[in-house]
Amino acid sequence: MSPRGRVLCVGLVCLDIISVVDSYPEEDTDTRCVSQRWQRGGNASNTCTVLSQLGVPCAFMGTLAAGRVADFVREELQASGVDAGLVVVHANCRAPPSSVVIANRRTGSRTILHSNRDLPEILADDFSKVDLGPFRWIHWEGRNGDEQLRMIARVNEMNRRRDPGEAITVSVEIEKPEKLDTHQLIGHGDVVFISKDFAKHAGYNSAEAAVRGLYGRVKRGGVLVCAWGEQGAAATGPSGEVACSPAFPPPTLVDTLGAGDTFIAGVIAALSRGQSLQEALTFGCRVAGKKCGVQGYEGLGELC
Amino acid sequence: MSPRGRVLCVGLVCLDIISVVDSYPEEDTDTRCVSQRWQRGGNASNTCTVLSQLGVPCAFMGTLAAGRVADFVREELQASGVDAGLVVVHANCRAPPSSVVIANRRTGSRTILHSNRDLPEILADDFSKVDLGPFRWIHWEGRNGDEQLRMIARVNEMNRRRDPGEAITVSVEIEKPEKLDTHQLIGHGDVVFISKDFAKHAGYNSAEAAVRGLYGRVKRGGVLVCAWGEQGAAATGPSGEVACSPAFPPPTLVDTLGAGDTFIAGVIAALSRGQSLQEALTFGCRVAGKKCGVQGYEGLGELC
Repeated sequence: MSPRGRVLCVGLVCLDIISVVDSYPEEDTDTRCVSQRWQRGGNASNTCTVLSQLGVPCAFMGTLAAGRVADFVREELQASGVDAGLVVVHANCRAPPSSVVIANRRTGSRTILHSNRDLPEILADDFSKVDLGPFRWIHWEGRNGDEQLRMIARVNEMNRRRDPGEAITVSVEIEKPEKLDTHQLIGHGDVVFISKDFAKHAGYNSAEAAVRGLYGRVKRGGVLVCAWGEQGAAATGPSGEVACSPAFPPPTLVDTLGAGDTFIAGVIAALSRGQSLQEALTFGCRVAGKKCGVQGYEGLGELC
Repeated sequence: MSPRGRVLCVGLVCLDIISVVDSYPEEDTDTRCVSQRWQRGGNASNTCTVLSQLGVPCAFMGTLAAGRVADFVREELQASGVDAGLVVVHANCRAPPSSVVIANRRTGSRTILHSNRDLPEILADDFSKVDLGPFRWIHWEGRNGDEQLRMIARVNEMNRRRDPGEAITVSVEIEKPEKLDTHQLIGHGDVVFISKDFAKHAGYNSAEAAVRGLYGRVKRGGVLVCAWGEQGAAATGPSGEVACSPAFPPPTLVDTLGAGDTFIAGVIAALSRGQSLQEALTFGCRVAGKKCGVQGYEGLGELC
């Protein structure tokens, strides 16, 4: 892995409209929120925000419908220092790509109403037009797995023609066990992130058990990483050694939305700087813990 | 009442973020909406939209926080043909003035999460700067009753100096029984709209009973109007006769949000054109019924 260079994250960007309440509203009532805020969301987009905070130059690639939300999201990406030049706008889609989140301050529950996006995902055809020259690392949030495999194939093809030291590192995130076509990505990343949900669905009860049990499905030389919320994270690589890190909970839990995306950014930032797997894992847990103590993603850069 | 001229509506404008679902979401779950849309809302703002559709030149006065939602709302007012020049922007308020609405398609329930607005209401001081010359009718959505009384006093003062045929008609809406300081408005409108909620709270079980029972509290020569959802509406004036109208439900119920604001616009439009109270009441019910058969406020002008 190259110690420096730009990171490209491919996946979802959307607008999260977050209403903070003291108790979950009953149907057919009027409730006054404690607070309400708008936040750019989407796993890959969140990971970019944190990468940028950690000083890693990065770009985001995803689709947007035309209109006001798209303008907000794009400006907000740029304001966070993320290159938004690869965003693909579908002028004929008008549905605002926003999620409504009801955050219960007392119980910590997150109730999410996803909009029914009529928006196409990024396709291999879109990706084929991207100049990969500036990138040393490309990360995919597992969404449309079949198309994403074709994009990864293009990167592998290009890597075969580059010097080994100049190869682009491929990472993938598999989060939702119900998205069956993303499962195959586990065999196609140099670094593979799997979620607690995915690991539990596969029959494992800890991050360590999951990375030991599933490592055989990772491609030769790859790394498998699994985060497990307040129980920390584990990872393993070609050496067979399993690295573990505890979680680093903040003094006060403020906002857990996007903590997983923050962990991934921390691990990518550390590995892309040439740190060891153990160092990267611990750093990822530290950044994610710090994130849970703040609203949004402010001030995470101070950990560098 | 003057047969023509501009109408000014003073009250709330906000952004409604409406998520349509097939069943009300349980706490701590992820739901995919049937559809999601953004719509300008707020009673006075909705009434303006419909007035404009009905061919009545009108202006809106209300407060907005600075920022993107304000831009959206203002452009959307203008696109609806409503003069937004009297909107007061509070640059130091940043909270997006938006309401999250969960609309259950199966049960028709509307669960609303209001944002906790840190935004001041329109004050008598703001209103004192408005050139009232172009207006023949001013409508207040009852909100900050004490201040609104002072605004009405200014109009009364001006009316005393105008020819009777040139007087500005004052109308008020009293909707929420829990807003105690708006109750006093009942004695200060030439046309007073009270809601079913307010009438029930005052001990009445029908629109007719409410206008009969409460008319004594209306100022001399005034008109009292009460709408009662699918049971239609009733009104009475100085003659003591009670006008009644049935509701005109659409073939298919599509969207009831803003039906009450639409009724008010219909009554104001008809009365300001010189129609009788009975004609105005029936017209208000017709427009409101038509509104319930469409998403938003499209095509209401065809009733004219």
